[in-house]
Amino acid sequence: MSEQESFVEELVNKSEDYSRWYTQVILKAQMADYAPVRGCMVIRPYGYTLWENMQRLLDARFKATGHQNAYFPLLIPESYLAREAEHVEGFAPEVAWVTQGGSEELEERLAIRPTSEAIIGMMYSKWIHSWRDLPVLINQWCNVMRWEKVTRLFLRTTEFLWQEGHTVHRTEEEAQEETLRMLGVYRAFVEEDLAVPVIYGQKTESEKFKGAAKTYSIEAMMGDGKALQAGTSHNLGQNFAKVFDITFQDMDGQRKHAWQTSWGVSTRLIGAIIMVHGDDAGLIMPPRVAPIQVVVVPIWRKEPEREAVEQFVAKLQSVLGSTVRMKVDWDDEHTPGWKFNEWEMRGVPLRLEVGPRDVKNNQVVLVRRDNRAKEFVPFDAVETRVQQLLAEIQQSMLQKAQQFMASRTRTADSYEQLKELMTGDAYAHERGFVLAHWCGDADCEARIKEETTATIRNIPLDAESHEGNCILCGKAGIGKRVVFGRSY
Amino acid sequence: MSEQESFVEELVNKSEDYSRWYTQVILKAQMADYAPVRGCMVIRPYGYTLWENMQRLLDARFKATGHQNAYFPLLIPESYLAREAEHVEGFAPEVAWVTQGGSEELEERLAIRPTSEAIIGMMYSKWIHSWRDLPVLINQWCNVMRWEKVTRLFLRTTEFLWQEGHTVHRTEEEAQEETLRMLGVYRAFVEEDLAVPVIYGQKTESEKFKGAAKTYSIEAMMGDGKALQAGTSHNLGQNFAKVFDITFQDMDGQRKHAWQTSWGVSTRLIGAIIMVHGDDAGLIMPPRVAPIQVVVVPIWRKEPEREAVEQFVAKLQSVLGSTVRMKVDWDDEHTPGWKFNEWEMRGVPLRLEVGPRDVKNNQVVLVRRDNRAKEFVPFDAVETRVQQLLAEIQQSMLQKAQQFMASRTRTADSYEQLKELMTGDAYAHERGFVLAHWCGDADCEARIKEETTATIRNIPLDAESHEGNCILCGKAGIGKRVVFGRSY
Repeated sequence: MSEQESFVEELVNKSEDYSRWYTQVILKAQMADYAPVRGCMVIRPYGYTLWENMQRLLDARFKATGHQNAYFPLLIPESYLAREAEHVEGFAPEVAWVTQGGSEELEERLAIRPTSEAIIGMMYSKWIHSWRDLPVLINQWCNVMRWEKVTRLFLRTTEFLWQEGHTVHRTEEEAQEETLRMLGVYRAFVEEDLAVPVIYGQKTESEKFKGAAKTYSIEAMMGDGKALQAGTSHNLGQNFAKVFDITFQDMDGQRKHAWQTSWGVSTRLIGAIIMVHGDDAGLIMPPRVAPIQVVVVPIWRKEPEREAVEQFVAKLQSVLGSTVRMKVDWDDEHTPGWKFNEWEMRGVPLRLEVGPRDVKNNQVVLVRRDNRAKEFVPFDAVETRVQQLLAEIQQSMLQKAQQFMASRTRTADSYEQLKELMTGDAYAHERGFVLAHWCGDADCEARIKEETTATIRNIPLDAESHEGNCILCGKAGIGKRVVFGRSY
Repeated sequence: MSEQESFVEELVNKSEDYSRWYTQVILKAQMADYAPVRGCMVIRPYGYTLWENMQRLLDARFKATGHQNAYFPLLIPESYLAREAEHVEGFAPEVAWVTQGGSEELEERLAIRPTSEAIIGMMYSKWIHSWRDLPVLINQWCNVMRWEKVTRLFLRTTEFLWQEGHTVHRTEEEAQEETLRMLGVYRAFVEEDLAVPVIYGQKTESEKFKGAAKTYSIEAMMGDGKALQAGTSHNLGQNFAKVFDITFQDMDGQRKHAWQTSWGVSTRLIGAIIMVHGDDAGLIMPPRVAPIQVVVVPIWRKEPEREAVEQFVAKLQSVLGSTVRMKVDWDDEHTPGWKFNEWEMRGVPLRLEVGPRDVKNNQVVLVRRDNRAKEFVPFDAVETRVQQLLAEIQQSMLQKAQQFMASRTRTADSYEQLKELMTGDAYAHERGFVLAHWCGDADCEARIKEETTATIRNIPLDAESHEGNCILCGKAGIGKRVVFGRSY
């Protein structure tokens, strides 16, 4: 990190210019950078380490629910992509095409996978023969590409990293169970590990995945009140099984089409972490996934002091080094104050300061990033206290985000109210989600979107039953309120 | 796994048709499958779990030597690839080109990365300013693509998975140290974790990486005596630093070009594991990376027996489950004998059998895959004994491979001898490596290759000094013998 790049200049205030704040903090914290290819980004080590920590935790959840990883090819022949009509219609406009291999012009264009239902469906038709081969529970971690017009670091880039689960089942019921099981896995991961609360529910027909029978999502609220679709789980029905001929001989001897699901989350979740937790001073990393959980800033002025501090820090490392992800900042170019700002900006949950006086008193200073609370802790208690504080920070970050989402989630009983909440000046800095009744009709949904820019994020699965009439057309609603919001 | 696919038919003998044996065992063991895109493969869960285990161990070695992971874009603009003249000359013939994004024709072709020196060099020139920014020690795990004419599962596929390290240093010496450090990391990983012995040394000028100053490799001997280049480490000198303008202000205030290295291993190592260790019955997995280390085959005939065996196996699982990767094969379609063959074919290092008599005697039967040694072990000793046996198997697999390589490595003191060893009928089933003197001249190297199909695999770093004359031209040699071999 060079002086000229990393000096902690004033960040723009989050409340002043949220979008600029977002980009600034990513670049300054060295999470990612722009690549010289349109819409692509480089994920730098600090951002990638976060992704690795997220992968490890989510992958463990996949394996605990019986899934295995595999790897399918990057390139999909156009004719495969085209087999499922809705699917190709949805994805073809944003596909990057390979047309030349070496000096040879290809006979058929090859799509860089925008998602892998087609190529995986083709392989499954080859592998699955009997009910004994089911269920197939496979996931892959990979890169995908969608030729987006407007891009934003982490949230929408031409290439991104994700995981995509693709499962095959004997019955419709099992496929539906799996669809909801994985939605639950996503919810638990995002809430427990990333401290980001979500609304989980079903997408409307017009917002579902192209090729799916039903799509479910988890939706998170960003710091500006906009929604981010943080993960999706699709019940594919027999759509792909029919076009790729995925059939099996069932227990009754009959040959049947299989039932499928697919589900995915991506590096876009890093954007959610940044937007949900960050503040005017920069990032705040949830301890469970933080690349660095504790940063040690040693403080000394002259040589004999440094040696004493060094010895003390070495003792700390032997106590903490194996239980937390820890970094000691020995850089001698910058003042402790500069370092405090730098590591606050990069969102390290806990700062540990050690100066000559602390050495003398056999103690350290611990400072929380989230609320800046400061405490003196005797050396013998450091290991326990650090673990407690990391757990507390994780918990309180989730609570704070929950409170924020609750405070920005309102109910509208009329279309006027919805419009006021979504477009009125009085709520310009207070936008959020709006719960309202809707009749289930795509036309009402479309008109509301056109007039308010708000879309139905999802139909929450755990919302209580409530009768009411569509706020637009006045016809009977679907039996519960749906969630409207502007989205990323 | 369906009956029809997985029934253990007779594998062709390894010695009879090595190449067919190789492909058969991969397909039957469900390591990988052919994809419908030319030269691409699908890595199935059993193969991918092996890769995950390899990644975890190698990645820990990277991190222990101070490296961090990052992610750079898949696509590289043609103009970047073209900057380093040798580099583009070497890779352009095998690049897959993206020419269309959505419905738009691109102005500049984008290469799917065949390797990432160009795109990473461009980013490094942006990030590096001062000697304080150095060294940069970054690795990435990703997919790459090379449009190969002739492909073979794992060994040479159009798309493959690998890691590529890219480091930047202040001095030439540091870059050279890093080049050899990472060669050493590869050697330790391949020998200790994969039980594959290697010869490590420097590539000749004509065999080095296009764009590098020096290339080093580890070379392994496959079961047919042919060489497999198992990993390479390049000292890039200032070649890329000059064309991408990677400069820094040094301690003396001068602006200088940086020194770089790059190094990589790929899923081709899976091919090495298969070819080095496998036998006529199928795969033999090195315990440290085996997807399944212990397979439990319960044996029972009627119901009360099954219950007793089940309870015993549950006890075993609670003892072994957290320390070894274990699978219990409860499948009730197949006989124990069928299962023995199946799991032998899939290379599980240790089989654990439990029948009603074992339950009564409170013992299990352990059978080693590598030498089929069988022993009865009391329940209380199982945990310790399994760990011992896994370690012994790992060790003895390495020794066996070392002995094989030694027995097939011969010295030639004349060109006639080299030709006889490489092409003579007497050695048709005994090919291997040949150590011989060479003058250092590319013309001699080329003529030997033309006439014997043998190439210089590398100039071993640890070979003892030995004076002698080039076996072809008779001029003075380079001071040690070099390694000739046919290669994959």
